Amino acid sequence: MYNQLTPEIIAQIKAVSNNVFEGADINPDYAKDEMPIYGTHMPDLAVQPRSTEEVAAVVKICYDNNIPVTPRGAGTGLAGGAVPLCGGVLIDLTKMNKIKSYDLENFVVEIEAGVLLNDLAEDCLTHGMLYPPDPGEKFACVGGNVSTNAGGMRAVKYGATRDYVRAMTVVLPTGEITHLGATVSKTSSGYSLLNLMIGSEGTLGIITELTLKIIPAPKHVVSLVVPFEDLHTALSAVPKVKMAQMNPQAIEFMEREIVLSSERYIGRSVFPQKLEGQDIGAYLLITLDGNTEDEVDALVEQAAELLVEAGAMDVLVADTPAKIKDAWAARSSFLEAIMEETKLLDECDVVVPVNQIADYLEFANKTGAECGLVIKSFGHAGDGNLHIYQCSNDLEEEEFKARVDKFFDIIYQRATESGGLVSGEHGIGSGKVKYLIQSVGETNMALMEGIKRVFDPKMILNPGKVCYRL
Amino acid sequence: MYNQLTPEIIAQIKAVSNNVFEGADINPDYAKDEMPIYGTHMPDLAVQPRSTEEVAAVVKICYDNNIPVTPRGAGTGLAGGAVPLCGGVLIDLTKMNKIKSYDLENFVVEIEAGVLLNDLAEDCLTHGMLYPPDPGEKFACVGGNVSTNAGGMRAVKYGATRDYVRAMTVVLPTGEITHLGATVSKTSSGYSLLNLMIGSEGTLGIITELTLKIIPAPKHVVSLVVPFEDLHTALSAVPKVKMAQMNPQAIEFMEREIVLSSERYIGRSVFPQKLEGQDIGAYLLITLDGNTEDEVDALVEQAAELLVEAGAMDVLVADTPAKIKDAWAARSSFLEAIMEETKLLDECDVVVPVNQIADYLEFANKTGAECGLVIKSFGHAGDGNLHIYQCSNDLEEEEFKARVDKFFDIIYQRATESGGLVSGEHGIGSGKVKYLIQSVGETNMALMEGIKRVFDPKMILNPGKVCYRL
Repeated sequence: MYNQLTPEIIAQIKAVSNNVFEGADINPDYAKDEMPIYGTHMPDLAVQPRSTEEVAAVVKICYDNNIPVTPRGAGTGLAGGAVPLCGGVLIDLTKMNKIKSYDLENFVVEIEAGVLLNDLAEDCLTHGMLYPPDPGEKFACVGGNVSTNAGGMRAVKYGATRDYVRAMTVVLPTGEITHLGATVSKTSSGYSLLNLMIGSEGTLGIITELTLKIIPAPKHVVSLVVPFEDLHTALSAVPKVKMAQMNPQAIEFMEREIVLSSERYIGRSVFPQKLEGQDIGAYLLITLDGNTEDEVDALVEQAAELLVEAGAMDVLVADTPAKIKDAWAARSSFLEAIMEETKLLDECDVVVPVNQIADYLEFANKTGAECGLVIKSFGHAGDGNLHIYQCSNDLEEEEFKARVDKFFDIIYQRATESGGLVSGEHGIGSGKVKYLIQSVGETNMALMEGIKRVFDPKMILNPGKVCYRL
Repeated sequence: MYNQLTPEIIAQIKAVSNNVFEGADINPDYAKDEMPIYGTHMPDLAVQPRSTEEVAAVVKICYDNNIPVTPRGAGTGLAGGAVPLCGGVLIDLTKMNKIKSYDLENFVVEIEAGVLLNDLAEDCLTHGMLYPPDPGEKFACVGGNVSTNAGGMRAVKYGATRDYVRAMTVVLPTGEITHLGATVSKTSSGYSLLNLMIGSEGTLGIITELTLKIIPAPKHVVSLVVPFEDLHTALSAVPKVKMAQMNPQAIEFMEREIVLSSERYIGRSVFPQKLEGQDIGAYLLITLDGNTEDEVDALVEQAAELLVEAGAMDVLVADTPAKIKDAWAARSSFLEAIMEETKLLDECDVVVPVNQIADYLEFANKTGAECGLVIKSFGHAGDGNLHIYQCSNDLEEEEFKARVDKFFDIIYQRATESGGLVSGEHGIGSGKVKYLIQSVGETNMALMEGIKRVFDPKMILNPGKVCYRL
């Protein structure tokens, strides 16, 4: 259904871009993201554009010639979303990495889509501002964050990436450039194409520029490390914290096992493992923020009292930047620690109602054992988003995949029954299409496919992803 | 292009609904919303369903027979969105008005779409919870609020209706029932059909049930009435308040003229008009909230200091429910007061970047004078959403419409140039389609039309609205 690149088409592309890579010059990383189990595939040509116009000119040529196009940021995805499954042209946006301007009267920053999250976060702080979305992977491109509606630690208080996108410039699959949204905080001006583009994983258009909402950085931040005897008690405390109007930035949960893995990986112990002779089974990691020291002190006091009443064994306060960094050190390395200890990895990123987390995790652990899989879990207790990893350890690839398939069929079904959804923040990519269909049903899938055809009549953009089944 | 209702089709509809109205039994209000200047039209048949299944069965018959269908809530719209321009069947959702259940562990309430905003707000408070969206019209249906992504006073701190919709049940134009979203606070599970439906003004589907996010009600609320010599000084204070991290619920602005109108309407004076012999030219009305009295007291002190420094003539504190109600009494009656004093009315509901408000209003006032129109304005200073009313006074309808047309061409163009959008919260309906096209351009309009055709292949649902040009 697609055409192959010819020397003539490549010449056309080179006429509109000085940043074209062919053959052995193509970066081999372009064949995969961080979850290669969903398949790898090299593009036939790669372009590293410097401007929206350059992206548009390349896409227009591909559209005219029926060549597949796959956009790619930093390649940190976990669902295969940036893998050029049908070859064709890969557009690497990482060189579109300029932070263009701040508008501190309207609380927005304008950037190119290839800016790294870490760079944006640090740059905002130098202006006294916070870009609230805080996905675990700090070296992802912000354009990729928008394309997956990435969530992250601070979503409990501040929401996901969606809530911070005011406007964007998009190259449509036809090569047209369009602008969605505006520097305004509310609108009722026709269908929200902006919200449709957010989370569409590069299948409806290529996001090249973004106008993002930022907020004045909270002046005081404190993290609490809260040990519990077991996960169930820890998770039961979460609705109480939320109901008490303390409005925490983050509420993460972690089981003993994964903390130990992570501490092995970073080479030091950061959390206590016993308290008064009693083993610690699980932890909550909570961050509170406020405008004054008094306000935050009062919150900490209120939280400590409430948590101990809810069964916490202790409440350890990290109230300096160094101590906070330390408290988060183990959490920040979970994925790397898991990767280090296994050959092959798969992952389930479901989101369930907050009060279902404990039961769901128990079910997942039991199912994992029944399927003969090593399971390691962590996640966002404040918003119900779980990251459940399956490690192959010494299993052969085929056997591992078969067991994971069986495991997924059961636990995604259970997520739907629990009122949850397939992915909280990692997206569908090519890896989770089957479970998306089961979760949302054929009617909604048909609507998504119809929308895909409206934006991309030749179906050239990012084939095989989200709702476009190859 | 549509068929007429026949006795056979009506009989089919009556076979699936006991709530059908014909001929003289059809409520004459169904011909219009609150802005009849955009056209009035009676439906040929009206249905007042009690369930999603009943809506679906009626819509299915209309779809099979190519009969237009127009959904309607309380009819409080201001853009003609609920007017059955092509006749056919009107579906009045006001009898689907049950608040079904609260889930206080996951912070949601489940309702039918015809629940009135006022009923939901009051009911939530009896559970200690706040439904944050607070549009001016309290007797609108929540389904209508979702269909226009209604904003309201508290959008500055809490966001618009969009931010509180977790899930919904929708009857598609084909009569199929589908479910969008889930009781989760973040998701990356395919295109956000939920966000597409929000703000689509009943053109993509009929929203019948909603799962809405609610939050613990803030325990302490204070409003500040802040007089200034002129509007420009008042508006200049707004970014300072926002930057100072006081996180106000609401920041409304009002000019002297409209406050006087409103006080005439409610029959008493609530705001001071002079201070130390000096005329007051404009007011800000600010609401602050917090969890403790100390916290709110500190905010009030900080705000007062900052506002006086920014040129406020005084800061009047309303710190009891009665005083707060009083402070908002004039604001709450603006629209009724304007309606009372004029025969015909039109309105522009643009949203512009917050730092553009003062210049934009000045331009609108000047343009209004040049076009020979009486202009009355108020709006949400905290989010850039302006309500600029044109009053016909003693002008004949044709002349008034001609002047408004000229006025709109100029001021909508200016909104686009200022980085704004056509509607902040009232929607496009049939009244603003022309300006939507000018604002978003033909490329985006074509995408919206394409999406409309995916959902509604026979184009039977709410013809003539948003992007479906008759």
